[in-house]
Amino acid sequence: MQVGKYHILIDCGDGTQYQLLRHKVSIQKIDYILISHLHGDHYLGLMGLLFTMSLNQRSKYLHIFAPFGLKDIIEAQLNVANSTLNFEFEVHEINTFESQVLVEKDALMIRNFPLDHRIPCMGFRVDEVYSKRKLKKEKLPMNLSPDQLKALTKGEDIQDTSGQLIKNESLTYPLEKSKSYAYCSDTCYSEAILDAIQGVDLLYHEATFLQEHAERAAQTKHSTAHDAAKIATLAKANKLIIGHFSSRYKELGSFLIEAQEYFENCELAEEGKVYLLD
Amino acid sequence: MQVGKYHILIDCGDGTQYQLLRHKVSIQKIDYILISHLHGDHYLGLMGLLFTMSLNQRSKYLHIFAPFGLKDIIEAQLNVANSTLNFEFEVHEINTFESQVLVEKDALMIRNFPLDHRIPCMGFRVDEVYSKRKLKKEKLPMNLSPDQLKALTKGEDIQDTSGQLIKNESLTYPLEKSKSYAYCSDTCYSEAILDAIQGVDLLYHEATFLQEHAERAAQTKHSTAHDAAKIATLAKANKLIIGHFSSRYKELGSFLIEAQEYFENCELAEEGKVYLLD
Repeated sequence: MQVGKYHILIDCGDGTQYQLLRHKVSIQKIDYILISHLHGDHYLGLMGLLFTMSLNQRSKYLHIFAPFGLKDIIEAQLNVANSTLNFEFEVHEINTFESQVLVEKDALMIRNFPLDHRIPCMGFRVDEVYSKRKLKKEKLPMNLSPDQLKALTKGEDIQDTSGQLIKNESLTYPLEKSKSYAYCSDTCYSEAILDAIQGVDLLYHEATFLQEHAERAAQTKHSTAHDAAKIATLAKANKLIIGHFSSRYKELGSFLIEAQEYFENCELAEEGKVYLLD
Repeated sequence: MQVGKYHILIDCGDGTQYQLLRHKVSIQKIDYILISHLHGDHYLGLMGLLFTMSLNQRSKYLHIFAPFGLKDIIEAQLNVANSTLNFEFEVHEINTFESQVLVEKDALMIRNFPLDHRIPCMGFRVDEVYSKRKLKKEKLPMNLSPDQLKALTKGEDIQDTSGQLIKNESLTYPLEKSKSYAYCSDTCYSEAILDAIQGVDLLYHEATFLQEHAERAAQTKHSTAHDAAKIATLAKANKLIIGHFSSRYKELGSFLIEAQEYFENCELAEEGKVYLLD
């Protein structure tokens, strides 16, 4: 994800670095890596990515958020390689059973929330929240005080030296629209996540199975396409992307048909596709 | 590698399972995985491969040979995933500073030998040795004893009941030609390996740098294309493949030119290419 100047990688399965390379995503720009849980398909590519970042002379600080256990694994893998990473990073081990704010930087806010899977697992909600208006610099009178400028960015009207009211909109651009994304993989159907993902512009929700295999979904704590669509409806999401399809299905059209029956604005996750939130 | 009915994977970097899939190599057929050393680009794809083998209902036994340290990492990764692999396997942790026979099965023999790198590291020599001739079953007399049959497979002549000499070649096919392959990555130039790789049909030797960066090669305990060619010459190898090129080089033709100056029968390692030993 790109949010303003910040770059976020969510989950990092085996070989992720090569997929990023193939799709021309700069690994050195990544600021935050969020790992939902420690099943292999969600984190096994992390160590290779970190080694490559180091080999390629990364200097930027890196924050990794993950469930407990990842630090030890990274340390063991550095030990056997008799290596250190030549850039600064921190692994923040997170209690996946509680929601908290992980990142709050400029307009970016990242929060985690608990998912219900076979091992500790969390979803992420990423918000781009604009609370300050940008000033029309070329139209500003010369003699405004810092307090007046602050009032303008907050959307308030001000008075000029003669006591004349100046409408806010004449000196500021309209507030940029806030955008929100939530990522839910892996999880069984769970309405407990609704508060956390309420009203997002874009919801990614796993759909490992079709409804005809609902029993298998329940056993393995995964969701069906129908489950994902139901969650999107209840959360009043604007758009839904489903993915994480079991390899038992050779064609994926049925996932879309099943989901769209309950939630029309749905797409299948597609490798390398770029989704814009406008 | 495929040797008779046996399948061998040597080293397993990040994303290897996807490369195998892409090149239509069945991961379930693999009998032996040989890990030369525990730098990330040589083993980080192993855990993902093992999980996929398990997910896809592997039943075949798997032997993994690796330096000390891999067992703990595999265990830690199974622990955080709260998983077990649903097939039988053994991780044989090997003293990389000594040569030994790792596998001896039918015509297949695999040995390790020490390489000289920054961390414990070993090369592998794989031989397909045919010591028994196949019998021409349709031409065998009815009344041969087990001892006579054994003598024939060993290449000896036998006498029939009337004392008449029967030449071996009339009842057996010619001995299949033995074949040998050696794999040396990563290592600095080291003539200590010559005994182990002597006379192989095919030698893979790393060539991370060009001779113009020989100093960097020495610092990082890697080889140059010239080093690899010199080793191939001294070892009287029939053919040399070089690889493991540093990503600093944007074109690889210079590697071939540098190596072929000293060893003509040389090729650059090429992803997905199949090399036949006949």
